[in-house]
Amino acid sequence: MTRNDFSRRRFIRDGAVASAAAWAAPAALSAATHPSNADYLEVGLPKADLLTPALCVDLDALEGNIDTMQSTVSANGIGVRPHTKTHKTPAIAHLQMARGAVGICTAKLTEAEVMFEHGLDEILLTTPNVSAAKLRRAMQLRRRCDGFVQAVDTEANARDLDAAAREAGIIADIVVDVDPGGHRTGVTAGEPALALAQLVDRSANLRLRGMLCYDGGAQHVSGFAARRTRAIEGLAPAAETFSRMQQSGLNVEIFSGGGTGTYNIDHATPGFTDVQGGSYVFLDAQYLGIGGEDDDDTYNDFRPSLTILTTVVNAQYEGRATTDAGAKSCTINRPWSIVVGETGMSYTSGSDEFGTVRYENPSRIYQAADRLELIVSHCDPVVNLYDKMYATRNDRVEAVWPIACRGRNQ
Amino acid sequence: MTRNDFSRRRFIRDGAVASAAAWAAPAALSAATHPSNADYLEVGLPKADLLTPALCVDLDALEGNIDTMQSTVSANGIGVRPHTKTHKTPAIAHLQMARGAVGICTAKLTEAEVMFEHGLDEILLTTPNVSAAKLRRAMQLRRRCDGFVQAVDTEANARDLDAAAREAGIIADIVVDVDPGGHRTGVTAGEPALALAQLVDRSANLRLRGMLCYDGGAQHVSGFAARRTRAIEGLAPAAETFSRMQQSGLNVEIFSGGGTGTYNIDHATPGFTDVQGGSYVFLDAQYLGIGGEDDDDTYNDFRPSLTILTTVVNAQYEGRATTDAGAKSCTINRPWSIVVGETGMSYTSGSDEFGTVRYENPSRIYQAADRLELIVSHCDPVVNLYDKMYATRNDRVEAVWPIACRGRNQ
Repeated sequence: MTRNDFSRRRFIRDGAVASAAAWAAPAALSAATHPSNADYLEVGLPKADLLTPALCVDLDALEGNIDTMQSTVSANGIGVRPHTKTHKTPAIAHLQMARGAVGICTAKLTEAEVMFEHGLDEILLTTPNVSAAKLRRAMQLRRRCDGFVQAVDTEANARDLDAAAREAGIIADIVVDVDPGGHRTGVTAGEPALALAQLVDRSANLRLRGMLCYDGGAQHVSGFAARRTRAIEGLAPAAETFSRMQQSGLNVEIFSGGGTGTYNIDHATPGFTDVQGGSYVFLDAQYLGIGGEDDDDTYNDFRPSLTILTTVVNAQYEGRATTDAGAKSCTINRPWSIVVGETGMSYTSGSDEFGTVRYENPSRIYQAADRLELIVSHCDPVVNLYDKMYATRNDRVEAVWPIACRGRNQ
Repeated sequence: MTRNDFSRRRFIRDGAVASAAAWAAPAALSAATHPSNADYLEVGLPKADLLTPALCVDLDALEGNIDTMQSTVSANGIGVRPHTKTHKTPAIAHLQMARGAVGICTAKLTEAEVMFEHGLDEILLTTPNVSAAKLRRAMQLRRRCDGFVQAVDTEANARDLDAAAREAGIIADIVVDVDPGGHRTGVTAGEPALALAQLVDRSANLRLRGMLCYDGGAQHVSGFAARRTRAIEGLAPAAETFSRMQQSGLNVEIFSGGGTGTYNIDHATPGFTDVQGGSYVFLDAQYLGIGGEDDDDTYNDFRPSLTILTTVVNAQYEGRATTDAGAKSCTINRPWSIVVGETGMSYTSGSDEFGTVRYENPSRIYQAADRLELIVSHCDPVVNLYDKMYATRNDRVEAVWPIACRGRNQ
């Protein structure tokens, strides 16, 4: 076991999930953020009574994470525009807005549509729409939702957006998506981005609002110093572009980017306005390993709040146990899920239907029908497997939240 | 590019998905197997008009696959009991039953419940239930569904099943789950399995129906000869157990196991009654590579019927294109998805939201808004990402099938 593994496990054993006491008592939640739902008879149940696999979020940890993000970015003079691709859950988006977010991000158009149906009305769609059908639907959403902002990354797309907005009889709000260098989406920083912003600015049916630049690769860089360097260098061309847009008299009220790994770094980039953090609400095994500003081994800025409850279905063979949470409940992302509160064992979910516990020097041995709780591997795709999330406090179900954007990947 | 890659790509390019002509005209489908659904306005649309990512199944290929399985097992004197964990779609289960299946399998209790709600009433649940809540629910399902059969793999579990059946006031149908050696689930073959069957047989509230033994590891062995040897050797201890059960006068009308990779091998095992094939309805990139009886490179017994439609969202950078189907639409299973009809390019879905096409010696170069069609990597977890499946014929939507068991992994 490496030092890194050990430290992470110690962090977990010491109660990252279970302990709520470290956080100040959260403000009372409004009815809007915790919709009661008569369909769900599970409200009030202890977690131990839930049918497994079950996806749970610990409310004390979740609220603490939202508060940490908000207070940090506020202190640094910027905002947070949470990326809801992570949680796909309107109730959590409402919590984020109630605690000070400037708006939300969505990755896909249908996500934006569902979030708007659920009362979220400041929405930045971070992916350009390119098909005629999506352009039309996006404009219909913009017609109903004043706070809907769309991304653009080519001049051809800007012309299509302008035509679609004209057809819908609206003025559409637009940000220029600038490539941080990964060439996944976004226009090249510098002259191409400036020219695109100018085209948007002079398009009769478009309104330029600014730019976004999301450097996904910077988020998981291990070690705070290395991450800081990479994040700031990665955003430098975008910052220079932003400055040129500003000097050209363009409206650049938005310069959005960054995420959970760089939320306390991004304000160092001149002009930067808001962090698009997603995973910070849950954290996950992938983020635990990147290290934080005051702990090289474990990213302890946020606490793991999202877990999967699973049940042992077979314990009759030496050195292992089989559970009911496999790839269809955990994904096959690495690192594998982490068993909360235990040491000396591994959990894998390579089988579609079954998880496997393997013992080395185990803190306990499981019997059939015993339950385990897992810190998820990579929160985004795990959430996308479930229809509902049990919001718990002190291990009792306080609300059952529909993951209304689950599967809305169009 | 290896020979294997080449052959597989040639097979695909030559029209495994597109060509329906190779199959005899399918029998007319009953209304029950193609429920019309007024909620879905997409019926009748060409595939090209669907919002992407979209999961599509080609009906000619699907029906051909079901016919191939059925005619092969029938000719070999056994049956097929399709595992619906693969498709999670009641409409497909009805197709399989209408074409001669002896019943269906489900991996999880909630899957069985939903299949029963949709009119399927011969259901073998292949995973033992161990928690009190699931035991009770299973007995409630058995009360309504005469054809519901449950698996057991420990004596303690047999006693729990007997108590739960007594509490529900029913006699529950049971098969003994025999471990093929992987130690995932199932009791050890030989004396332990025989003793367990005898315990079930003398339990007042249980009715022994036989046994199952699923050797998952045998299914993907590459090369027909090696797979045949492995499958037959793997089932030998179970076959010997089956024989001892029979000699003991136990009711062993069911000896279920096998799957898509061994469907034309399993009848060689004495006593074997039915193949639990799942993936054969769709095939996928994983199965394409195992080789068939008459083609060492490509498993051409069945045809890839399940595809993901995706749209290019960025094509402005040299050597690559970005699409809208990433890990949340394709999973990260390997081998990666295969682009239908193209050569000299790879498709990866390592990003949550975006797929990446990389060109080597490409048969074409994509522009933004162009569409690709992908053969899925591993069909089971891919299906579990979508709420609906577009059933198409000649590239037009003939039905929209709710994937009603999606997420029913409890």
